[in-house]
Amino acid sequence: MTFEVWYLIGAALVFFMQAGFAMVETGFTRAKNAGNIIMKNLMDFCIGTVAFLLLGAGLLLGEDALGGFLGLPNFDWITQFKVAAETGNYSYVSQFVFNLVFCATTATIVSGAMAERTKFSSYCVYSFIMSLVVYPVEAHWIWGGGWLAQLGFHDFAGSTAIHMVGGIAALVGAIFLGPRIGKYTRDAKGKVVKVNAIPGHSLTLGALGCFILWFGWYGFNGAAANSTLSLGQIFINTTIAPAVASCACMCYTWIKNGKPDVSMTLNASLAGLVAITAPCAVVPAWASVIIGFVAGILVVVVVEGLDKKLHIDDPVGAVGVHMANGIWGTIAVGLFADPELAAYWGLADGGLFMTGHFTQLGLQLLGFVTVAAWAAVTMIATFFILSKVQKGIRVSRTEEIEGLDKMEHGMPSAYADFTAVSLNSEILAEGEPEGTGVEVVETSVPVVASAVDAKMSKIVIITKQPRLEALKTALEQIGVTGLTVTQVLGCGVQKGATEMYRGVPIEMSLLPKVKVEVVVSKVPVETVVETARKALYTGHIGDGKIFVYNVENVVKVRTGASGYDALQDEAE
Amino acid sequence: MTFEVWYLIGAALVFFMQAGFAMVETGFTRAKNAGNIIMKNLMDFCIGTVAFLLLGAGLLLGEDALGGFLGLPNFDWITQFKVAAETGNYSYVSQFVFNLVFCATTATIVSGAMAERTKFSSYCVYSFIMSLVVYPVEAHWIWGGGWLAQLGFHDFAGSTAIHMVGGIAALVGAIFLGPRIGKYTRDAKGKVVKVNAIPGHSLTLGALGCFILWFGWYGFNGAAANSTLSLGQIFINTTIAPAVASCACMCYTWIKNGKPDVSMTLNASLAGLVAITAPCAVVPAWASVIIGFVAGILVVVVVEGLDKKLHIDDPVGAVGVHMANGIWGTIAVGLFADPELAAYWGLADGGLFMTGHFTQLGLQLLGFVTVAAWAAVTMIATFFILSKVQKGIRVSRTEEIEGLDKMEHGMPSAYADFTAVSLNSEILAEGEPEGTGVEVVETSVPVVASAVDAKMSKIVIITKQPRLEALKTALEQIGVTGLTVTQVLGCGVQKGATEMYRGVPIEMSLLPKVKVEVVVSKVPVETVVETARKALYTGHIGDGKIFVYNVENVVKVRTGASGYDALQDEAE
Amino acid sequence: MTFEVWYLIGAALVFFMQAGFAMVETGFTRAKNAGNIIMKNLMDFCIGTVAFLLLGAGLLLGEDALGGFLGLPNFDWITQFKVAAETGNYSYVSQFVFNLVFCATTATIVSGAMAERTKFSSYCVYSFIMSLVVYPVEAHWIWGGGWLAQLGFHDFAGSTAIHMVGGIAALVGAIFLGPRIGKYTRDAKGKVVKVNAIPGHSLTLGALGCFILWFGWYGFNGAAANSTLSLGQIFINTTIAPAVASCACMCYTWIKNGKPDVSMTLNASLAGLVAITAPCAVVPAWASVIIGFVAGILVVVVVEGLDKKLHIDDPVGAVGVHMANGIWGTIAVGLFADPELAAYWGLADGGLFMTGHFTQLGLQLLGFVTVAAWAAVTMIATFFILSKVQKGIRVSRTEEIEGLDKMEHGMPSAYADFTAVSLNSEILAEGEPEGTGVEVVETSVPVVASAVDAKMSKIVIITKQPRLEALKTALEQIGVTGLTVTQVLGCGVQKGATEMYRGVPIEMSLLPKVKVEVVVSKVPVETVVETARKALYTGHIGDGKIFVYNVENVVKVRTGASGYDALQDEAE
Repeated sequence: MTFEVWYLIGAALVFFMQAGFAMVETGFTRAKNAGNIIMKNLMDFCIGTVAFLLLGAGLLLGEDALGGFLGLPNFDWITQFKVAAETGNYSYVSQFVFNLVFCATTATIVSGAMAERTKFSSYCVYSFIMSLVVYPVEAHWIWGGGWLAQLGFHDFAGSTAIHMVGGIAALVGAIFLGPRIGKYTRDAKGKVVKVNAIPGHSLTLGALGCFILWFGWYGFNGAAANSTLSLGQIFINTTIAPAVASCACMCYTWIKNGKPDVSMTLNASLAGLVAITAPCAVVPAWASVIIGFVAGILVVVVVEGLDKKLHIDDPVGAVGVHMANGIWGTIAVGLFADPELAAYWGLADGGLFMTGHFTQLGLQLLGFVTVAAWAAVTMIATFFILSKVQKGIRVSRTEEIEGLDKMEHGMPSAYADFTAVSLNSEILAEGEPEGTGVEVVETSVPVVASAVDAKMSKIVIITKQPRLEALKTALEQIGVTGLTVTQVLGCGVQKGATEMYRGVPIEMSLLPKVKVEVVVSKVPVETVVETARKALYTGHIGDGKIFVYNVENVVKVRTGASGYDALQDEAE
Repeated sequence: MTFEVWYLIGAALVFFMQAGFAMVETGFTRAKNAGNIIMKNLMDFCIGTVAFLLLGAGLLLGEDALGGFLGLPNFDWITQFKVAAETGNYSYVSQFVFNLVFCATTATIVSGAMAERTKFSSYCVYSFIMSLVVYPVEAHWIWGGGWLAQLGFHDFAGSTAIHMVGGIAALVGAIFLGPRIGKYTRDAKGKVVKVNAIPGHSLTLGALGCFILWFGWYGFNGAAANSTLSLGQIFINTTIAPAVASCACMCYTWIKNGKPDVSMTLNASLAGLVAITAPCAVVPAWASVIIGFVAGILVVVVVEGLDKKLHIDDPVGAVGVHMANGIWGTIAVGLFADPELAAYWGLADGGLFMTGHFTQLGLQLLGFVTVAAWAAVTMIATFFILSKVQKGIRVSRTEEIEGLDKMEHGMPSAYADFTAVSLNSEILAEGEPEGTGVEVVETSVPVVASAVDAKMSKIVIITKQPRLEALKTALEQIGVTGLTVTQVLGCGVQKGATEMYRGVPIEMSLLPKVKVEVVVSKVPVETVVETARKALYTGHIGDGKIFVYNVENVVKVRTGASGYDALQDEAE
Repeated sequence: MTFEVWYLIGAALVFFMQAGFAMVETGFTRAKNAGNIIMKNLMDFCIGTVAFLLLGAGLLLGEDALGGFLGLPNFDWITQFKVAAETGNYSYVSQFVFNLVFCATTATIVSGAMAERTKFSSYCVYSFIMSLVVYPVEAHWIWGGGWLAQLGFHDFAGSTAIHMVGGIAALVGAIFLGPRIGKYTRDAKGKVVKVNAIPGHSLTLGALGCFILWFGWYGFNGAAANSTLSLGQIFINTTIAPAVASCACMCYTWIKNGKPDVSMTLNASLAGLVAITAPCAVVPAWASVIIGFVAGILVVVVVEGLDKKLHIDDPVGAVGVHMANGIWGTIAVGLFADPELAAYWGLADGGLFMTGHFTQLGLQLLGFVTVAAWAAVTMIATFFILSKVQKGIRVSRTEEIEGLDKMEHGMPSAYADFTAVSLNSEILAEGEPEGTGVEVVETSVPVVASAVDAKMSKIVIITKQPRLEALKTALEQIGVTGLTVTQVLGCGVQKGATEMYRGVPIEMSLLPKVKVEVVVSKVPVETVVETARKALYTGHIGDGKIFVYNVENVVKVRTGASGYDALQDEAE
């Protein structure tokens, strides 16, 4: 009876991993999309529950059919709750809950890779299909008595069934979507000439999420244990692998980049956990040292390779963590499975390094390839159809730049009392909203004469934040490099943009703007004003205003130069 | 023995829900009160423990007396720890811990509805009384062998005993306090003409809190299970109801407002959990689909009705979540209870829809009405007496505007490294500190002549943040609509306001201020300066300063207009 | 079997305390070091695991040797996983996991006291040594069958073995490091003339950490229970002590400072938990009221004494919480242990107040003194050698001022979308980067004549944030007291400071700066400019620029004074 209760405690811990995923994914993305990511994480559990009730549970747990391909749909969850006899095995309701929380985990892995640019409605549909069909079918193969289970394929807690499948879905989704605006700078031919970092908005929440995930993983890996000894073994492996992975990754990034990378090391702990998920019950502790070590390096290589070589934008590293290490964990079973434990858990054989036999390794490869194929085909079909039906699964440029919280959920900010703006203006390089670049302002602006030779002027430009980069670039081209940028609030109710917060309209009478100040002497004021106008002009209300002031003097602290001289080499 | 250990694990999970409440309540309120809300959540557990030790435990668990009205006070917690024989039932100490954590949950529900304006000392007293008498007595009725238990009323884990009672206390408290400053805009007769949204300061923390609560709820609902089958059934219901509630709410707000509301959907997950709390052990899984669906809509209707129709300000929606759905869950037992399970758990009968009998439904209504009456009467008495003794349970206007963290706890900010200001200036509409509106400045201010016809001037006003709205309104009345607002730090130690942080005085030598800039041409500078002075004048140090500068030119980006023309229609 | 599973669940809860420590420590320190503290918390678990595998596990759990001084090193964790027979006692792998998570807790206590100024590499080495030797040896004495265990010394869950040892290491580390820059203001002779508060950057995360720790503590204290009754008793004590400690601390700070201190009360809850850790299984519930009460006061006295009397800078209060209360908990066993429970758990005798015998109290004192001596000697040796080998364990002044996230991990900010700056400029008093104070600018700056008698000028100074305090002080000395400070972003890529984020370079083209504005009339512009230059000059690029503007008029809101008069008494 003890393990039947533990099985459910384990399920609760797996549920808690939803909090971990939500924190990791929101922490490692930008503040303007925080609410959207939270909502996706919440809803893939909730939508997944509905899908699992409707069909998924039957496909996974139902009577085996079509030669082990799927379970027959049923509604046992409605009828089975009163089976009085405790079967000695876990009761149906326990199994149902247990499988449901695992199912939702699979769906949620994807939201990180598709973060910051996916239409919320598309995501809901994807999530429904994942929990309705995609996951239940392959999980039936592995855990529901399906054909892979019959062959002796082993995936104790889901390196393949959950993490690899989630990771593949993440990869397919990220490719379908394309990179976030500003992630890759391209030349005229579309070739990527620069890869830009888009740091997350809260490392502390991201780290909290990792700790929660690790904690929950003791339930994730351990829930299906059926003896104290096996549970102990699972716990020791679930501790050693992520710990060693983190150490390996820290050392690797330290050597490679000169400094130990915090966010990558946090990812590495998850990579170690993913990798030990399949083999946790069948490998000795020393093997989990090796499995963890490889995972810690692998995650760095895959995350960087995907980003820097393949230019696939996976904001939180879901592919590197879940897909790559899901595969590695699946294979590791075939390498390190202890023969006695393998026999105990129904594997075909022990691992290659323990027995010299290739049997189990072959099975593991077969399992990984077939499940991967299933996941890839169904996911490509899903996103392809979604793209056609919904005119694209991606939000518009304006929505992406303004942020999904505001555009998809009508929430001006997840952090209403704080002003958030990205310090990394480079990522705005591609980031103009629609309608810009319309350089209609060819006639000279009638500026009041002001540029006496030695005279210095301050030009103050107030405009919207997303236009900052365009303005900066334009000013640089005319030789103005010393800018001071201040976040300000412009007054005035934004027309036609009434958002609701809990059913009540929010009036944003103070709108976030940027104030850009430049002081010029050599460059004529007219040139600056005209250039700024061209860069900012869209023809819509809110393009901004430009003010000109007289400056009496300027002194450069370092050199003591004053006046005109102080303004040279302004880029400090 | 397994379930005795699980009972305590469940208690630990219920304790963890305190973290969930703390995060939900602080996340959905403003940054300036974050520390205060944390403190309330911490202290109602701690004060509640003391109250429970002193009297509450006896009233709840003591020998039944007065015909089932209360238990006789005792100090068994001091003497019972060495009862050597394991009784086969849960030991007294286990029961004590279990009931204590539930008791503290009841108290903590209230802090959300009373957030941002309650005197901390009043809250401590309220919390003490709740755990000393109010909760223990009604919990004795339901769980301590009292009269409702004897009749066959059923509330498995506390939809009535905890959530409805907490929700009623929240409602009474919110009515006694009145709405937060700025929540409702009223006309001269005091009629509400506009309902304003006051968004919370951290959606991510709020969401984390919801996930923690859901996780803890598996312990909350499950702890008292006594077989694997019943625990499995409780888990499946505790999963389905909130999941369906979230889906229902998301769809409902999507249809109603055009966008899926994140914070309301998070509330809906809690609503589903509250509603399934009473019936979780006695209803089949399909019933929890219905219970969850109703909960997800009900929470929206009640939260919005309370806010928009009744104008009762419940910052985090505690009444809608806990009271309304506590009642719904209590009634649901009388509708959906399975006859077999009802018999197993000692109900009088199965539910109306299962048996066609009204017996249990009648009992459930009786229980809800009597417990509600008890809670309402005791809470009204408590807050009424507190109001008399303490000269009101509400902080002063100044304290509310400045924030409870600073005024009640001497903590300048819960986020010392960040500057926080509300973007929603509308909520400051009522928000002048005491002493304003004293328009004593009728004589003209001797401003240096500066308003040549075509001349443009910039007027810069530096003042305290809470005065922003009054200034903005005043300037709008004289035709100045284009403001730029910047958060700045004013230098100078604030006299007489030495706060302590961990016993060490904090010197805030940089005080948060706002800088308001306007550029005018048509409106005379003198008028602007005089108007600003009138709006800002209180006669106290810190009213601020006004600076006047010459502007050489202004260009409007969209139209290309310059000078005087560029300043027309400034509201963009 | 139930308790063998609970033992592992308890271990998972203890692991989760790592999240609690990470949140407490990062929440109560500054934003610029958030990533570094997270990394330390993650890595002391991960490095600790490696150290424990290599040697620590053997020293703790191995065959007793040297008369109870240590266990013989072994690699049982590699070989013992297949011991088929369940021994009736906890299996080796369970014990291994259990002891590992406790070991890591000891190491992590230290990071809070050494926060914000320790070299990351030194910290890694310290952490390795702690888990390799220091903790395993003394834990062997107490729990591994060593000499203290043989004598009857009792420390149920580690007040001595974990918290006191961690606290002593924290104290030694804090003394070796010295206080953070700006923590103490000293006069010319080095005497501390002022103690400054350095508030943490997120009270909400800190509070969340406390709740997580308290939740985890039910596992920490309870895991080793072996009957429902003992587990219940542990839970009741683990609830009462922190609750009473929090109440006591709240009241104490309320009386002492006039307001209830939030962060200290949170610390008090932890203090109560630490104090009840040793006696939780052997004292009656009424004793935990006393133990908690003392803990709640003790933590305030020690935290303040350390800070205000001894001038030892312990940013999160680790010494007060863990060392002081670890000692108090150890002694409390000798005072309050119930004789029956003492016999049950193998103590030599009951406590002084229960039996009148000094036996157990003497043993507890012996244990605390010897373990404290061991910890102090080994830690002093560790930090001493580290200091010699690494040229100091402390980062440079520049690194400390800029923040460890940036300098140690190449992460510009843990909160990339927010700008963070300390409002408490006093803490910058000592805070000039290296190379400042070089007042080489004795020649007069050739400022364009501008100071006509009644003329008013605005001087705008743009410079780096860390220079703010020096500038402010210098300006005050020449009579300029009314400053307005704005956080701005200066444009221009910082040369030679390419940081990597997940392997991708981050270009910070907008650098955080401060803009300081003063308006002067009496004080000549030249004097202000020269003074500012002297205060800011370092000779490096980035010293900043000074701009001078004409002001047409100034009006003081309160008095209505304009022009020159409005600028007097500017400090409001």
